[in-house]
Amino acid sequence: MTTFAPPAGPVTGALPLPVRRRPGFSLEGPFYTSAEIFAEDIDRVFSSQWIFAGTEAEIPRTGDYLTVTFGHQSVIVIRDGDDVRAMHNVCRHRGTRLLDETCGTVGNIVCGYHKWTYRTNGELMFAPAQPPNFDKTCFALRSVHVRSLDGLIFICLAADPPADIDTVAGLVSPYLAPHGLKNAKVAARSEIVEHGNWKLVMENNRECYHCDNHPELICTFFPTYGYEPDEIPPNLLPAYDRFLAAENDLHAKCDAAGLPYEAIEELDGRDVGFRIQRESLDGAGESFSADGSAVCRRSLGGFTDKRLGRLSMHVQPNFWSHVLSDHAVVFSVLPLTVSTTVVRTTWLVDAEAEEGIDYDLDELTTVWNHTNEQDGEIVARAQLGVSSPAYEPGPYAPSEYQVEKFCSWYIDAMNAGEPRPEPAGRSTGESG
Amino acid sequence: MTTFAPPAGPVTGALPLPVRRRPGFSLEGPFYTSAEIFAEDIDRVFSSQWIFAGTEAEIPRTGDYLTVTFGHQSVIVIRDGDDVRAMHNVCRHRGTRLLDETCGTVGNIVCGYHKWTYRTNGELMFAPAQPPNFDKTCFALRSVHVRSLDGLIFICLAADPPADIDTVAGLVSPYLAPHGLKNAKVAARSEIVEHGNWKLVMENNRECYHCDNHPELICTFFPTYGYEPDEIPPNLLPAYDRFLAAENDLHAKCDAAGLPYEAIEELDGRDVGFRIQRESLDGAGESFSADGSAVCRRSLGGFTDKRLGRLSMHVQPNFWSHVLSDHAVVFSVLPLTVSTTVVRTTWLVDAEAEEGIDYDLDELTTVWNHTNEQDGEIVARAQLGVSSPAYEPGPYAPSEYQVEKFCSWYIDAMNAGEPRPEPAGRSTGESG
Amino acid sequence: MTTFAPPAGPVTGALPLPVRRRPGFSLEGPFYTSAEIFAEDIDRVFSSQWIFAGTEAEIPRTGDYLTVTFGHQSVIVIRDGDDVRAMHNVCRHRGTRLLDETCGTVGNIVCGYHKWTYRTNGELMFAPAQPPNFDKTCFALRSVHVRSLDGLIFICLAADPPADIDTVAGLVSPYLAPHGLKNAKVAARSEIVEHGNWKLVMENNRECYHCDNHPELICTFFPTYGYEPDEIPPNLLPAYDRFLAAENDLHAKCDAAGLPYEAIEELDGRDVGFRIQRESLDGAGESFSADGSAVCRRSLGGFTDKRLGRLSMHVQPNFWSHVLSDHAVVFSVLPLTVSTTVVRTTWLVDAEAEEGIDYDLDELTTVWNHTNEQDGEIVARAQLGVSSPAYEPGPYAPSEYQVEKFCSWYIDAMNAGEPRPEPAGRSTGESG
Repeated sequence: MTTFAPPAGPVTGALPLPVRRRPGFSLEGPFYTSAEIFAEDIDRVFSSQWIFAGTEAEIPRTGDYLTVTFGHQSVIVIRDGDDVRAMHNVCRHRGTRLLDETCGTVGNIVCGYHKWTYRTNGELMFAPAQPPNFDKTCFALRSVHVRSLDGLIFICLAADPPADIDTVAGLVSPYLAPHGLKNAKVAARSEIVEHGNWKLVMENNRECYHCDNHPELICTFFPTYGYEPDEIPPNLLPAYDRFLAAENDLHAKCDAAGLPYEAIEELDGRDVGFRIQRESLDGAGESFSADGSAVCRRSLGGFTDKRLGRLSMHVQPNFWSHVLSDHAVVFSVLPLTVSTTVVRTTWLVDAEAEEGIDYDLDELTTVWNHTNEQDGEIVARAQLGVSSPAYEPGPYAPSEYQVEKFCSWYIDAMNAGEPRPEPAGRSTGESG
Repeated sequence: MTTFAPPAGPVTGALPLPVRRRPGFSLEGPFYTSAEIFAEDIDRVFSSQWIFAGTEAEIPRTGDYLTVTFGHQSVIVIRDGDDVRAMHNVCRHRGTRLLDETCGTVGNIVCGYHKWTYRTNGELMFAPAQPPNFDKTCFALRSVHVRSLDGLIFICLAADPPADIDTVAGLVSPYLAPHGLKNAKVAARSEIVEHGNWKLVMENNRECYHCDNHPELICTFFPTYGYEPDEIPPNLLPAYDRFLAAENDLHAKCDAAGLPYEAIEELDGRDVGFRIQRESLDGAGESFSADGSAVCRRSLGGFTDKRLGRLSMHVQPNFWSHVLSDHAVVFSVLPLTVSTTVVRTTWLVDAEAEEGIDYDLDELTTVWNHTNEQDGEIVARAQLGVSSPAYEPGPYAPSEYQVEKFCSWYIDAMNAGEPRPEPAGRSTGESG
Repeated sequence: MTTFAPPAGPVTGALPLPVRRRPGFSLEGPFYTSAEIFAEDIDRVFSSQWIFAGTEAEIPRTGDYLTVTFGHQSVIVIRDGDDVRAMHNVCRHRGTRLLDETCGTVGNIVCGYHKWTYRTNGELMFAPAQPPNFDKTCFALRSVHVRSLDGLIFICLAADPPADIDTVAGLVSPYLAPHGLKNAKVAARSEIVEHGNWKLVMENNRECYHCDNHPELICTFFPTYGYEPDEIPPNLLPAYDRFLAAENDLHAKCDAAGLPYEAIEELDGRDVGFRIQRESLDGAGESFSADGSAVCRRSLGGFTDKRLGRLSMHVQPNFWSHVLSDHAVVFSVLPLTVSTTVVRTTWLVDAEAEEGIDYDLDELTTVWNHTNEQDGEIVARAQLGVSSPAYEPGPYAPSEYQVEKFCSWYIDAMNAGEPRPEPAGRSTGESG
């Protein structure tokens, strides 16, 4: 496209690069408060890396769609026969946003302004009252790369997406595939706006040092979550023994069933930074509930044993999830402005499960609805604090090592001019 | 004024000039989203060109006033005997805004802070507790140029306003004068905030390519509105024949009565870009209503024939109107911020018309209240879309040629260092 | 602190210094509207000078606290035994804001995120799950200078606060001490947001030229307030005679009791610009009420004579107060954004006074609740006006001479690279 107008608005390159940080310490204030850095976050992170968009379970039939909005970007993710397609939510005529809703179903994609009509594969099908020489093929919707990892949909807005999504797909598939997320059904959704920068939302999720704030959640999390084995505080040693016993039990069961459980932790050092691990749950060990027992009577993936712990997965920069024997809960983090962030939560159950018979909606959603709300309060308070000129980065505790890795990945992503080469090897984490 | 403080805030010249665009295509995104360009819009367009302020019918008696606000500017337009005056709505003492309301009536203009009191001609009449050497004549309100075109009030904040208002006044007067707008009465007003840049509001008004969104309005608009004769789509040929018959009928009638109807279209190429034309209406052909029949029993201007079509007039950058045999509806577009715009609508009827007897308020206002609301939704969706980094300018259809002219006029206005000389000749448009 | 990230956000030095103004005229528009100048106001004025934080009466017991927020700063002011301490409201771990409320009581200061726990003197007492080499003494809350002037708490965020607070403390103590504010009790508080720049709020308070807007307040203010003796308008001469008689009576009484009353006016020319004076009240002469009679039956400070007028004190940049024989009312002005400002009002009565018996809450607060509301409307209108490009500074009337001094002090504070040396002498104002 020839540029006829002068440049205006945030420009890549306006931020002096490379950005830097002090290892082991939280990021400096401007990373959470500067509109210029936020513009770079949208450009260099969310528009350049693979980001999580939603699940195939949400768009089972042709014409079912999701919209994914962050900063000023908006992307349509739509089912087109066997394919999932992604395209910018911007009409090629005068730029009008095409689809307003978070999710829905359309026959074709029709612009509400002048009725330009696009097929579910993005092709312009009809534009009223054009002259004879109008070439529809020049005005298809601008496409976006899309990739499903066993039902988890990732998109990338870059022309040349990071290639190591293929490697990561291969690494996580043995963990994910047995749970059949592709064929699950959406039981519930929520979308909340948290009053803090998206990085505070992600950092908050990468440690359980703060989990005393989550009484509903920690019923089933071992209190030693996040600690290195040699750093367990003395008062938590009994809980650690309980954890070890539950882990032994889970590992024996998984070995018998051919289910992988070992942690793979490559949160930084590669484009698609990720972590996956199956871990035992405290209490009844089945699901997120007050006593740890299942909240859906039907298994997700056809397992007969309910005590499969949680298969927890995290992908930089905006995804985490937990897959249990009875349901899955997946999260996406979408930056709105420098100080506001959308958190979308989707609960999936088996396609045959019926509300009121197999599960109660309140019971299914209560733990994470409460947890999200609690985290929202924390994030708002954190945003206020790091906005102070008196804030200076503080030290991470050992149990916050994944926050450190998030920050490290983020700084690398900001400094990356081009997608990096595939890392030579991979390390396997040892703790959960 | 000697500047004692350093410059701050948007400065003319901060935007690299000249700005440019690709002919035939919509404007690039920053024109709708950049705060810097918006500041230039306020400065180089709304504070330099003639803009529409309201109607004389709204301020019939001395002391009746309107306020016109856009960006951070606010102007008082006030009746002062036979004159209409305009002045900045800023006290000369410590700068307080003088009049808060959109319209009203005052004896003198009294500042609510320290009671500095100005006459309706702007002179400072009284300032309490000043020393003997205080010279009131140095502190009159800062005046603004004002010009009435047969009852339509235009103002210009520039020291040296574009001179071609005189030419335009002469061109439009034969069309306007017979309708007696000066002596009309205000039947209704509305003011809505649309969530889009002011240019999206104006562009939206310059084509009927989108008029399927306006079921109430298109009852009386021929479906061929906006098409060039040789570009009528085949399915609209019957409607075009109906339009031609109605036009013939209207022209014969106007020729007999001495009413001009031919289009004058000089939307770009001059400072006071404008378009005026009398066109026939579909249906009963009298007014804006479901079946095209009149909504006020009294004629506006004393005509006995109700089938006079609509006299439609547009003036860059912020005005359009329709004058019918029974009422007139006039619009002003006032930018608030880069992404919000006020649209003011005023319905005028004959001075003697009585609500409840000659007209029903809901019936009079329903078409344009609905149309404004529908346009507001369109404009909001357009603003979201053009804000996307993925937006790129798209091609205008033939029926959007007036949008093209609006953009062309706008770019010229932005690039004009000084008011341009009067254009040598004028062209007369051929279509409606 | 080593800076690892590039600078972002407002930077000291971005504003061309020195700033200037035209003496005798109001400040130019950008001082009220520019985000850059506002950032400098927060940095060079509110974070460099002594500012008013609240009263000791509000925090009588250890653990009682106030929070003081302005711009992005937030400071805790807390009772710690006999001491009052002040510290940044920012956790040393990951920067979270510690205390959310305007005032309250805590045992220790516990961060809601990860339970880092600080003593009321700011020392870090406990940080969970840290490695053995973690040194708590490195992570005390960042302290802020604090100074009580006979119960009025001032804080300074600068490393090296202006030293002349000592001189000012000595000058005002003879006036303040007899009233025993330290041992008063809080009867009421209010906090309102005014929609104008903080300087408009302060300027508004420094003159009674606008007091016709305050019918409740001017019951007890002599109409000649703010005029120089030789500039009293003729129509106010009778009121001036009444004022002189009341003054004579008050002075005789104060001389007998050893209470100082003479004005000390050093509003500019020093860091802690201030003014203090005891003046007679009109009407019954006792307090702020419709007829000037007392609104609390108990004396504040143990006086038996109720006709002690008002001891009025003003300190740049954000404080004024009135101490009467029966109650005191103190105000702090806290900038939120360039165009919004918090005004906090606290009413103090004798520690033994009981609501419903000694005073009625509505009666106590009605005058200043109305006055604050009226001033809020004025300030909002002033902000709108000075935001206009058409605004230019206007001349101050003689009765606005203290506004002139406020502006003069402000410009000096903005230009001060370092705290200025103590001024050599001081002048004593002659009027009230």
